This record gives sequence, C-alpha cells and structure tokens, in this order.
Amino acid sequence: MVGTGLIGGSFALAARRAGLFDDIVGIEPDAERGRRALALGQVDRIARDVADDADAVLLAGPSHSVAPWVTRLAGHRAVLFDVASVKGAVLQQVRSEGPIPARFVPCHPLAGSERSGPDAAQAELFRDAEVIVTPTPVTDVAALDRVCGWWRAVGARVSRMEPDHHDAVLAVTSHLPHLLAFAYLQQVDDEHVRHAAGGFRDFTRIGAADADMWAPIFELNRDALLAALGDLETSLGRARRLLQDGDGSAMRAFIREAALRRGREAAVRGAGTGDG
Amino acid sequence: MVGTGLIGGSFALAARRAGLFDDIVGIEPDAERGRRALALGQVDRIARDVADDADAVLLAGPSHSVAPWVTRLAGHRAVLFDVASVKGAVLQQVRSEGPIPARFVPCHPLAGSERSGPDAAQAELFRDAEVIVTPTPVTDVAALDRVCGWWRAVGARVSRMEPDHHDAVLAVTSHLPHLLAFAYLQQVDDEHVRHAAGGFRDFTRIGAADADMWAPIFELNRDALLAALGDLETSLGRARRLLQDGDGSAMRAFIREAALRRGREAAVRGAGTGDG
Repeated sequence: MVGTGLIGGSFALAARRAGLFDDIVGIEPDAERGRRALALGQVDRIARDVADDADAVLLAGPSHSVAPWVTRLAGHRAVLFDVASVKGAVLQQVRSEGPIPARFVPCHPLAGSERSGPDAAQAELFRDAEVIVTPTPVTDVAALDRVCGWWRAVGARVSRMEPDHHDAVLAVTSHLPHLLAFAYLQQVDDEHVRHAAGGFRDFTRIGAADADMWAPIFELNRDALLAALGDLETSLGRARRLLQDGDGSAMRAFIREAALRRGREAAVRGAGTGDG
Repeated sequence: MVGTGLIGGSFALAARRAGLFDDIVGIEPDAERGRRALALGQVDRIARDVADDADAVLLAGPSHSVAPWVTRLAGHRAVLFDVASVKGAVLQQVRSEGPIPARFVPCHPLAGSERSGPDAAQAELFRDAEVIVTPTPVTDVAALDRVCGWWRAVGARVSRMEPDHHDAVLAVTSHLPHLLAFAYLQQVDDEHVRHAAGGFRDFTRIGAADADMWAPIFELNRDALLAALGDLETSLGRARRLLQDGDGSAMRAFIREAALRRGREAAVRGAGTGDG
C-alpha cells in the first residue's frame, strides 16, 4: 500500500477485517505518518519499496503520485489499483510514459472527509459508499474482477464509467464545490465565524480539506473544472442580475429550480433532505 | 403569533414547555398550515387578527411581512418581536411608515433548517442557538429584557448587534452561501446527483431552502449581499487565474488560507471540523 492516509488506512483496516490479505505493507515517505499507521494497526510494517512478491498494490497517495507509481510498477506481477479523484488525466500521464499496464485498475471511492492522515482512518469508511471504476480497453478482466470484489468486501457498491466522463462528472459534484468553498472562505473572518449557524458549518465543511491533496486534483482536472466553473459563473451572473433588478418572481423560480435539483438528491439516494 | 412555520412553531412548542405564556394564538393566512399547527399542539387556536389584550406578538412570517405588521400593531400594548433574517432593512421599512414602536424588539435566531412549515417545528430548535437582538435607540428596556428572557428560557444565547452591521455579517455568513448553493445547483443534473457523496450533500443542503422565504431576504438585504457577492467574485477570479496558470504553490496557499479560516470555526465554537 503506497500512502497511509485516510483512504489507504481505512482500506487497510477494512481489508484486514474482511480477511482479504495476509500481510499489509505500507510505503510512506512521511516517517511520522508511517509510524502512526503502524501503531494504529493499519499496516504490518513499513517498507521503502514494493516487494517483488506482492499480490496487490493500492496506490493511495495524492492524485499526482499515482501515474509515476503505475509507470514504475508497470512490469510488476501485482494487481495495481488507485483511489485518485481524477481518472482521465492520470491515465493520460501513464500513457505518456508507456503502455497502460493491463493489471492497473483505476478506481475512485466516493468516500472521504475533510480530515486526513492515519488518525482519521476508519474501517467503516467505505460502507455503502460508491466506488467508480474506470477500466481502459486494455484492462485485464480478472484484475478488474478481483479489485471490484475487494471493494465489495469492504462494503462499497461498484459502478463503472469512462475515465474522461468520470472527470467531467466529478468536476461538478466534487471539485467545483471544493473550489467554491475555498473561494468563499477567503472573505470569512473571526466575527463571521462567531455568528455562524448550521448552514454555514455544512456549506463550508469541505473548505477545511487538505491543500496537498486538493491542489493536485485541481491541476490534473483543470479543463473539466474550468468548464464547470464557467457554468457556475454564468449562473452567478444570472443571480446577480435578478438581485440587481429586484425581480422577486424570477428569483423565486431560480431558487425553486435549485431546490428541485437538490431534492432529486433525496429522491435518487433515498436520503431525506433533512438528514442532519 | 403571526406565522406558523418552522420558527414560529418551534418557539411555540418551546415556550409552552417553558410555561412562558398561558395561551398561544396563531395567525396564519395559509389555512392548511394553520390546521397543522393546531393539530400538532403548537397553537391553542387560530385567529384572524391579534387580540387587543395580547401581551406579546411574535412576528414569524417571511421577512417582508414583518414591517407591515409592526406598523399595523404600532399602537398595540403588546411587546412585539420578530425573527427575520434581515434587520436594518426591516427597520427602515417600518420607519418609512412612522416612528418605530418602542416595544418592538428586532430579533434574529440563528436556527433553522432547509425544511419549513409546522411539521418541521421542534421544541429543541433554539437549544444552544444564538439569537441576535438589534435594539434601536428607542427600544424600551423592559420590553428588550422580557424578549431576551424568553429566548433564554427556550435555551438560546442572546447577543446584541447594530441592525445594519447584523445585515452585513449575515450577508456573508448566511445569505451569500444560500445564493451560491442556489447558483451552483443550476448545473446539477440527475447523473451528478447519482454520483454525489457526503461533501456534495453538506455543501448543497441549504440549497433545498424555501423560495418564498429566501427571495424576500435577498431583496431586503440586496446591498450587503451584492457587496459580499462582489468579494466572492474577486476570490473566484483569483482561483480561476491560479487554475489557468497552473500555479500549484499559490493554489496550495489559497486552500490553506480557506482551511485556516474554516478551522477558526472549530476553535471559536469548540466543535470539531469533523462534526459530521
């Protein structure tokens, strides 16, 4: 397992509980983080590199670390899988260095938290979460089946998507909300914070996320994120005009449209809109 | 009590539990809503107008309904208090029709939900919530004390602010996040919703709010909201440039600044950033 953060540590805990692997080895450039993962029982030991006889390698470092590792392990016997939030761009990086290994299965678990590191890991993180796999035309079917089986064994549902389509969808559902929360928070000071209520806390929760994780995601998915940002700027411009014109009935329609689209979330996922 | 929605109904339930009033009468133009408030035991009866011998009148309708009611009840003996999310603009509306009644105590409880109506009401809504009161130079001290006492009796903390300052603060902490969530949701379709995770749900929760409540808030607090929106547009423009330039280290600094400001929320309020 390369990277002992929230996702790697959680997968290790869950995999251990499900009895998926005999021995879990952590590769972690940050020595303190590696020690924590070891102390918390997430890994059996820390190593410098992947052993030649490893069966599976989870690449759980930041998004920009995935392609170099895939390239480096291209000739290894192990099944490789990652958890990066960007898929198309990572595959393109790998392709620029050589053929995509058939035993590399690109994955993105839609689970996480604004917290990070081994101490944030939990065995139940993937319970009922969706994992999107984005196999390529060369992906080995047996490797794909094994990886999907591991995700299911830790409680996740697996769905499948084209890599570039994944990046366009996630730009809207995840990357843009993070960028918006980061931008919004620039104007928030201590007085604002003192008088903030539940709406503020929910809206800005993702704004506490880790910069070392998110800057590379934005960079890798730049084009799709810029497109999503463009759509947002258009909507925001419309909101500004409705506000300036004092057009109450058009503003009501604008808000109703938003609430309707948010409401579908409840309908599609079976969760109440008042879920907290 | 004028208006039997989430806030009015919740206050009625909590006030009844605390034994604050002998008799709670609801005034509600929406007959079905009035029947629900009655059936749920939030009010003892529904009436068309405020009785001459009422001791207190809570104005719990939408923000734009407050000023007309204050003007109408200017000569009434009762202590008047409201719960509108905008304070300066409401006082200005009242002032445009005549002197501000001394027994009118402007209040804004920072409690609520994206849900609305009597069925969403709960006696514990104000427990540990902040209520901002914005007395004017003419506000009667005895009336102010009574209203603050009622809020404390239902579990709230009371703080005090200048009306216009309240509107500037709330434009940033509440009105802008709602506008942003509404604007963002315009581009969200069913496929996005199917692949949304916890971050999306938290970020958009306020986007399911009631249009009839929010359009008047935006209209009343237009100037402060436009100023807050201008700041956001500046930050978003900065984010766009960092993204286009591929300036990873400046993007990291931008994200760290956001996380730091969000982190203060935890520090100031004593709640973990991982509070859900």
